[in-house]
Amino acid sequence: MKTNVVVLFFSGAGHTQKMAEAVARGAASIPGVQTSTIAIKGDDITQGRWKNDATLAQLDAADAIIFGTPTYMGGPAAQFKAFADSTSERWFHRNWKNKLATGFTVSAGPSGDKLSTLFYLFTLSMQHGMIWISQGETPFNDKGINRLGSYSGAMGQAFTEPAEVAPNSQDLLTGETLGQRVAEAAVRWKRGA
Amino acid sequence: MKTNVVVLFFSGAGHTQKMAEAVARGAASIPGVQTSTIAIKGDDITQGRWKNDATLAQLDAADAIIFGTPTYMGGPAAQFKAFADSTSERWFHRNWKNKLATGFTVSAGPSGDKLSTLFYLFTLSMQHGMIWISQGETPFNDKGINRLGSYSGAMGQAFTEPAEVAPNSQDLLTGETLGQRVAEAAVRWKRGA
Amino acid sequence: MKTNVVVLFFSGAGHTQKMAEAVARGAASIPGVQTSTIAIKGDDITQGRWKNDATLAQLDAADAIIFGTPTYMGGPAAQFKAFADSTSERWFHRNWKNKLATGFTVSAGPSGDKLSTLFYLFTLSMQHGMIWISQGETPFNDKGINRLGSYSGAMGQAFTEPAEVAPNSQDLLTGETLGQRVAEAAVRWKRGA
Amino acid sequence: MKTNVVVLFFSGAGHTQKMAEAVARGAASIPGVQTSTIAIKGDDITQGRWKNDATLAQLDAADAIIFGTPTYMGGPAAQFKAFADSTSERWFHRNWKNKLATGFTVSAGPSGDKLSTLFYLFTLSMQHGMIWISQGETPFNDKGINRLGSYSGAMGQAFTEPAEVAPNSQDLLTGETLGQRVAEAAVRWKRGA
Repeated sequence: MKTNVVVLFFSGAGHTQKMAEAVARGAASIPGVQTSTIAIKGDDITQGRWKNDATLAQLDAADAIIFGTPTYMGGPAAQFKAFADSTSERWFHRNWKNKLATGFTVSAGPSGDKLSTLFYLFTLSMQHGMIWISQGETPFNDKGINRLGSYSGAMGQAFTEPAEVAPNSQDLLTGETLGQRVAEAAVRWKRGA
Repeated sequence: MKTNVVVLFFSGAGHTQKMAEAVARGAASIPGVQTSTIAIKGDDITQGRWKNDATLAQLDAADAIIFGTPTYMGGPAAQFKAFADSTSERWFHRNWKNKLATGFTVSAGPSGDKLSTLFYLFTLSMQHGMIWISQGETPFNDKGINRLGSYSGAMGQAFTEPAEVAPNSQDLLTGETLGQRVAEAAVRWKRGA
Repeated sequence: MKTNVVVLFFSGAGHTQKMAEAVARGAASIPGVQTSTIAIKGDDITQGRWKNDATLAQLDAADAIIFGTPTYMGGPAAQFKAFADSTSERWFHRNWKNKLATGFTVSAGPSGDKLSTLFYLFTLSMQHGMIWISQGETPFNDKGINRLGSYSGAMGQAFTEPAEVAPNSQDLLTGETLGQRVAEAAVRWKRGA
Repeated sequence: MKTNVVVLFFSGAGHTQKMAEAVARGAASIPGVQTSTIAIKGDDITQGRWKNDATLAQLDAADAIIFGTPTYMGGPAAQFKAFADSTSERWFHRNWKNKLATGFTVSAGPSGDKLSTLFYLFTLSMQHGMIWISQGETPFNDKGINRLGSYSGAMGQAFTEPAEVAPNSQDLLTGETLGQRVAEAAVRWKRGA
């Protein structure tokens, strides 16, 4: 049975979607891994509450979940947070305990309070009893992986540029590398069970 | 002209509203201060985006804004975050720079990741160039003020109890004390201008 | 070959040592696991810099490291931080990449900014490319496990009481449960390699 | 009587000292303000505990304290933390309540977990009941002020370059601007008393 990695993200202007695709591409490159990419849609949010049982069922079946969101006003997008709040029943029943998790985010500045968003994605994962995979790579490589110096997850930079050019290829490679890392960890974690 | 303190909050089950009322009561007790209490409504959120120009105009006119939200899944409620995201135009135009700010939150556990939420409310305020007022009181008093040991803002505890009994009177007094403190600071800050 | 779990901690007045012993007891109860408990000593700190090559070598040999420190003035004790700063060479050479990690902390208040310390222990572990194990348990049990509502690691409460009585038996059981959890994860992670 | 702004910092390799001098230069440029710059010295640290009563007395006399430290291993330098831990008696007696505070930090990466350090400096200030001044400026200016996109305090970037060239002139201007801002706020806050 394949190891199942789900990339669950919200994207407003398409930049975070580019990161999500890069992360999923990395995860899919690992033998024995199947990957899904799921976008949080505004249509599923009513009065600030997100509801999509099919998506929750896909997450229930995951071995690892990689969370992605832009950093809006110093934290995760409200649309992502609406999804997060809707997982409280899973939290209560500990359905996601021991799944692997990590995260990525995109904002305009080099720092840009992106760490605040990663801290939130971590805190959400901890509430669920999940296990958090670090970014893993230092910036000391000649490919630009982790050029922004993020250790808790992957960071990409984009402001009002078209999603074709931002996040740039180095940031996308950072995301791809994180996807590989989580998928490898998920295979190992499943094998050890 | 009176010093204008606005308590802006979201409440799901009524517990955070009780805290908001206590905070506002404290602020209103300071001479020369007028206080408004504004609830974020789910009706103002469409596809995860909050819009209410009248509320934003009230906030534009404030000398101090006190932000309140439950802690849901380790962070601010999505409804609060939808409001926060909608302030990006104010952020760009620096409309709220130098206003005073602080925050309060409610969740079930004594710790309960409430500090994560206060860190977010702080980060939002920093994005706006605001000035953050600490909680001020230690737990070393015989009234139960700040019994949970929170320094960055006020914390209240409530789970599924009715809002009539939780947060308890000590937590409400903690909120009231914070409201007084912020109102006094706002009067002083305005007088010094 | 046994799975090697090291509990590395600083304790000022003995309360954090009690938590460390409980965590180690939990880890040692898992078949196939050997546990070491190492206290950071002030004698190893000169001008704010910690040095103890034997301890670093023990950590190099660990499959999982559990970090513990009191929360002093809203963060990890300086003595713990002196240890952390001394790991920069390990960081540069990625020696601890993929080891498991988690943390625990003790302070006076129920909340008491303990989450700030756990966020730091997490950030340190992320810098090293480690994998962070959540606390795992909700407070919904009749034994008092995780009574304070902490998800990122274990929290204990103690002020000026003797270390014989604080942290209390519920907090010590919280630590013991975390130790078991990390040891089980380390066995599984090693087996999957 | 002049408004008294103290810049209290630790610097290992001289980069943070350059930032401290820029911050102090900005503060000193405001009429009616006197500025002191105090370096935390390793000589004052014994077994991880800092002691310097003359420095504490200078801080007691400050209207505003600006805290600075490199980001080492994802948090404040141990030497800075040793100072912070030594302020617990001031904390207990609330000596620094209502003083203004802000912070700055330097590390190698553009993000580089510097926000973790600013969160700590904020948390320390909150413990003391202080009032935190935001960075204030967005990166949308043609001088490079706040080029890294930090809102909670000032960030500078430096790795192993000589302190003559890093942090660069834009980062130093960011620090200088923060110093001006805090000094102006301190004058206003004192006048309003």
